[in-house]
Amino acid sequence: MKKGLLISFEGLDKVGKSTQVELLLKHLKKKGVEPILVREPGSTETSERIREILADRSLVGKISPLTEFLLYSASRAQLVAETIKPAMDRGDVVVTDRYYDSSSAYQGYGRGIDLGFIDTVNMAATDSLVPDLTILLVADKSISNSKKNIKRFSPDLFDDRLEREFLQFRKKVQAGFLQIAKKEKKRFLIVDASEKKSEIAKKIAARIDRLLKNRT
Amino acid sequence: MKKGLLISFEGLDKVGKSTQVELLLKHLKKKGVEPILVREPGSTETSERIREILADRSLVGKISPLTEFLLYSASRAQLVAETIKPAMDRGDVVVTDRYYDSSSAYQGYGRGIDLGFIDTVNMAATDSLVPDLTILLVADKSISNSKKNIKRFSPDLFDDRLEREFLQFRKKVQAGFLQIAKKEKKRFLIVDASEKKSEIAKKIAARIDRLLKNRT
Repeated sequence: MKKGLLISFEGLDKVGKSTQVELLLKHLKKKGVEPILVREPGSTETSERIREILADRSLVGKISPLTEFLLYSASRAQLVAETIKPAMDRGDVVVTDRYYDSSSAYQGYGRGIDLGFIDTVNMAATDSLVPDLTILLVADKSISNSKKNIKRFSPDLFDDRLEREFLQFRKKVQAGFLQIAKKEKKRFLIVDASEKKSEIAKKIAARIDRLLKNRT
Repeated sequence: MKKGLLISFEGLDKVGKSTQVELLLKHLKKKGVEPILVREPGSTETSERIREILADRSLVGKISPLTEFLLYSASRAQLVAETIKPAMDRGDVVVTDRYYDSSSAYQGYGRGIDLGFIDTVNMAATDSLVPDLTILLVADKSISNSKKNIKRFSPDLFDDRLEREFLQFRKKVQAGFLQIAKKEKKRFLIVDASEKKSEIAKKIAARIDRLLKNRT
C-alpha cells in the first residue's frame, strides 16, 4: 500500500486558495488519484458546529483570541481524528484548505498568542501529523485589495480606523506565514498569488507530481 | 479595595454540588457579600454556544476526547477573560460550579489525555488564575447510585456493558479528583457528599469565613 499524502493550502483570505484547490483536485483526478478534500474549520459534523460559532457575526468582537484559537484547535482535532488520520492510514491523498499554520499565523503572529503554546496545541490537535507539502499563496496585491474585497462582504463593519487595523492585521498574518515557511523550507511551496491562475496551478502540479512519484 | 476571591466546586455529577453552591450563596449574602455565580461550561454567550455542542445528544460518541477537552477549554478561556478576571480585578467573590480541575479529572484521569498537556492548556485558558479554595464533594455512594440517577436522564443510553463502562469511568474520575487534591492540599476542602446537606454546608461556611476574614 502506498503512503498517504497530506497537502495543505495556506494564505490570507481571498488570495485564490479555493481556486487552486479545485485546480489541484482536477489534476489529481486526471492522474487517477481520488483525493479527499477538507477545509478548516469544519468538514465533520462536530467541526461544522464549531465553525458556526466562529462564523457567527453576532459574536464578532466578543470572542477572545485565545477562545478563538482553542475553537479552531477543537475543530482541527476532530477533523484529524475522524477524517484525516484514517485517510492517511488507508494511503489516501488528503488536500486541506487551511491547517495548523493558519492558527500560528492568525492567532499567533496576528493576535499575539504565545507561539510556543500554539505549537504545543497544534501538535496535540493533529497528533503531530505534519503536511507533506504546504502551498502558501502570497500576494501584496491581496493586501491592498482587501479593502474592496471585505467591503463587499461586510460593508457595515468598516470605517476608516477599522479598515486600517484590518489591513495591519493582514500584514502581520502574511508576515507570519512567511516566517513559518522560512523555518521549514522543505515543507513549503511559496507561490505568488498575483501570477496567472494557470501558471500557479502548473507550479503546484509539478511539485505534486514529484511527491506522487516519490511516495513508497 | 479587598482582594477578589475565587471559589470552585468540583466532583462527579449528581453528587450535590448545585445544592452546596446555593447554600454557600445564601451564606455569603447573609454576610453582606454579593457573589458572582458562574458554571462550566457556559455562563457567557460564547461559552453557552460551546456548551450546546458539548451537551448535544446527537454528537455523543462522535466527539473525540481531545476535541471535548479543547471545547471545555475554549468555554473556560472565554469565561475567565469576560467574567471571572474582571470580577477578581474589582475585588469580587466568584463562585464557580466546576473549573479546570474538572478537565484534569474527566479528560485527563478519565479519558487518558496527557496530564502535562492538560495542565499547560488549563493555565493558558485561565491566565493562571488558581482558585483560592476548591471544594471537592466525594461520595462512594454517588458512584453506586449513578445507575439510578443516569437512567433517569437517559434510559436509552444504557445497557449492561455501557453501564459498567460508565461506572468504571466515574471511579477513574473520582480517583483523579482525589489525586489532584492530594497534590494541592492547601487549596482543597474535601467533603463527604454522603453527610447531611446542612452539615456539609456548615463545614464549607466555616472555611469560607476564614478566607473572608484573612483577605486583605
